[in-house]
Amino acid sequence: MRATLLNCTLKPSPEESNTASLAAHVVAAMKSRGVETEVFRLVDLDIRPGVETDMGDGDEWPRVHESILGSDILVLATPTWLGHPSSIAQRALERLDAMLSETDDQSRPVAYNKVGGVVVTGNEDGAHHVIADIVQGLVDVGFTVPGQAWTYWNMGPGPGPTYSDTEQGHDWSQMTGRAMAANLVTVAQALSAYPMQAPPD
Amino acid sequence: MRATLLNCTLKPSPEESNTASLAAHVVAAMKSRGVETEVFRLVDLDIRPGVETDMGDGDEWPRVHESILGSDILVLATPTWLGHPSSIAQRALERLDAMLSETDDQSRPVAYNKVGGVVVTGNEDGAHHVIADIVQGLVDVGFTVPGQAWTYWNMGPGPGPTYSDTEQGHDWSQMTGRAMAANLVTVAQALSAYPMQAPPD
Amino acid sequence: MRATLLNCTLKPSPEESNTASLAAHVVAAMKSRGVETEVFRLVDLDIRPGVETDMGDGDEWPRVHESILGSDILVLATPTWLGHPSSIAQRALERLDAMLSETDDQSRPVAYNKVGGVVVTGNEDGAHHVIADIVQGLVDVGFTVPGQAWTYWNMGPGPGPTYSDTEQGHDWSQMTGRAMAANLVTVAQALSAYPMQAPPD
Amino acid sequence: MRATLLNCTLKPSPEESNTASLAAHVVAAMKSRGVETEVFRLVDLDIRPGVETDMGDGDEWPRVHESILGSDILVLATPTWLGHPSSIAQRALERLDAMLSETDDQSRPVAYNKVGGVVVTGNEDGAHHVIADIVQGLVDVGFTVPGQAWTYWNMGPGPGPTYSDTEQGHDWSQMTGRAMAANLVTVAQALSAYPMQAPPD
Repeated sequence: MRATLLNCTLKPSPEESNTASLAAHVVAAMKSRGVETEVFRLVDLDIRPGVETDMGDGDEWPRVHESILGSDILVLATPTWLGHPSSIAQRALERLDAMLSETDDQSRPVAYNKVGGVVVTGNEDGAHHVIADIVQGLVDVGFTVPGQAWTYWNMGPGPGPTYSDTEQGHDWSQMTGRAMAANLVTVAQALSAYPMQAPPD
Repeated sequence: MRATLLNCTLKPSPEESNTASLAAHVVAAMKSRGVETEVFRLVDLDIRPGVETDMGDGDEWPRVHESILGSDILVLATPTWLGHPSSIAQRALERLDAMLSETDDQSRPVAYNKVGGVVVTGNEDGAHHVIADIVQGLVDVGFTVPGQAWTYWNMGPGPGPTYSDTEQGHDWSQMTGRAMAANLVTVAQALSAYPMQAPPD
Repeated sequence: MRATLLNCTLKPSPEESNTASLAAHVVAAMKSRGVETEVFRLVDLDIRPGVETDMGDGDEWPRVHESILGSDILVLATPTWLGHPSSIAQRALERLDAMLSETDDQSRPVAYNKVGGVVVTGNEDGAHHVIADIVQGLVDVGFTVPGQAWTYWNMGPGPGPTYSDTEQGHDWSQMTGRAMAANLVTVAQALSAYPMQAPPD
Repeated sequence: MRATLLNCTLKPSPEESNTASLAAHVVAAMKSRGVETEVFRLVDLDIRPGVETDMGDGDEWPRVHESILGSDILVLATPTWLGHPSSIAQRALERLDAMLSETDDQSRPVAYNKVGGVVVTGNEDGAHHVIADIVQGLVDVGFTVPGQAWTYWNMGPGPGPTYSDTEQGHDWSQMTGRAMAANLVTVAQALSAYPMQAPPD
């Protein structure tokens, strides 16, 4: 089983990414269940604005798209800015939008029978809405979102430490991340055995 | 296979409910796949404010809760007010919240292995956000949301006709509703055969 | 200067309301600037579902509506459930929606030249989205929302203590509440001196 | 009086931008009230990811920031993708976030006494949530949002024509845009005469 994880931090490598730190726990939990994960730190790539799979002109989304097509699981991992998914996460959703009109040889949208999950970090409140926006976007495109297929680490009230600044709450976020990994893997297996069909006319 | 559909219109019976009209297409599509659906028009019941399964004092949520426990599929159907799910839909989510701490004999949250979907109507723009809020709420509680397990009928820009005032867009909303029904049924079957397990520690 | 504050807790009196506790600081800060506030705990009233100012049948919204018409400032104070405003807060927005079509003797929507603010509490993450939904709803209806006219007390990650369970973060939430009160009062005064006009055709 | 309008289309010049077309009506309505507007089509600039005012390395945000500092009015104009503000709009909000810690010589956040508005277009439903996210972001940073300081052109249900494909609904969107312009100008004048003060301690 394969997974693709998109780290949507605003910070280019080699800066430390809080989102990467929490996402690593989810990747490890998936690995312990036999899932190999390809991780893209999107800010390091040239992901062009647009809603086509290949925007040309050096656009590096096509190889991300290729990885997603070859995966059973897609995880969007994002920081929280002003209570929203990062601009990089929204860019990823915009590029995923093109998959709406891509179908397999059975006329199914290519995201059918793939599952999606969300990892959120932030130095202030906001995770619930980030999860809402991303889950709705993934379901729009055709991904199935298993129950409790997310984890987050956000505190409040007001601005505070980042994930890497403290140990507070890590246990909860990591435990929740392990449940997320289990649910993604189980539902991906279920859909592999009992796949969704092409939409009726 | 059983489904529960919660019609979250603000209008008590016997007023005509636009939400009921679109939801009826989803119910019919599920029926054609062998699913029996119990429909509750929540505004006709006394659903008390609170976040427990039984708020006492004549509270009628317990029999809705009982129906959901006995179903494989839960559909929330709601109008759009100010771009949000109706207060009745939010009330339903608040009451569903209690299911977070209810587990079955295998220590699984009771919503695990149930699937959820959304039907939205409105006399103005807003469906996407309504879907986002409800899908996130359902996933929070443990429901799995299949790809494209929603339909809507909202127009814009500005205030306009209601669903029952016109035929415009009905074809799209009903076709999308048939796809929704198919996806709910298939994923419910998949989870029945390959069920999610209790969260790891 | 007058204000109306709607406490949208799910808990009927005399239960302790966390939202009331934080809101009291905003009320006190407004009072210190000469503003008298009328507080409604909406769950204690019979606020009927609907989108008219008077839904008849014992509906108690009309006197809330009367208070808002007589006020310069409206504050919605709400707990967070599943990351959303409470069903009581959404009910209030639905009832406020009727003000869209009510105009004064200069053909201005009655909410013009009134200002709105938001107070949020919760035992988990979610305030930013609650603020977004309420601020958008108020602006829809015609209220002006001053910069930083909100405060909140929500923590994370995961479920945690309520506002009244701890002192943590109170300083920040109360300080932010004092700024909110100042901004509401100043902008209400500004609009009183330089009022918005009826919309052009 | 000066305004800055950020067009957050995903399409680089010289492609036709639906968002630009609707925004032009708001710009014209502001001009008729004596407001000069500087328009930035952000996708044509190199706006680096990050949350500082100057991210270095050829970053072109600083001159946008300079324009905003010199303006009384800020309008974000954005298309709708998956029901959300575009990635370019979210990028703008992230860069505006730095203004939270910038103060004037009276210790006021620099966005105080500036007003903000929103223009939305889209080939499907979604405007209400786009407005919610942007209004909340602007208020967070310190902008005041006047009542009804937005317009939109989104249709539904399902994908449909773009703004430039049809005349349908243009009248409503343009009329609403004229009201938006009037309200932005009036409230900006009010705040100029009766300015908000530095937050109390």
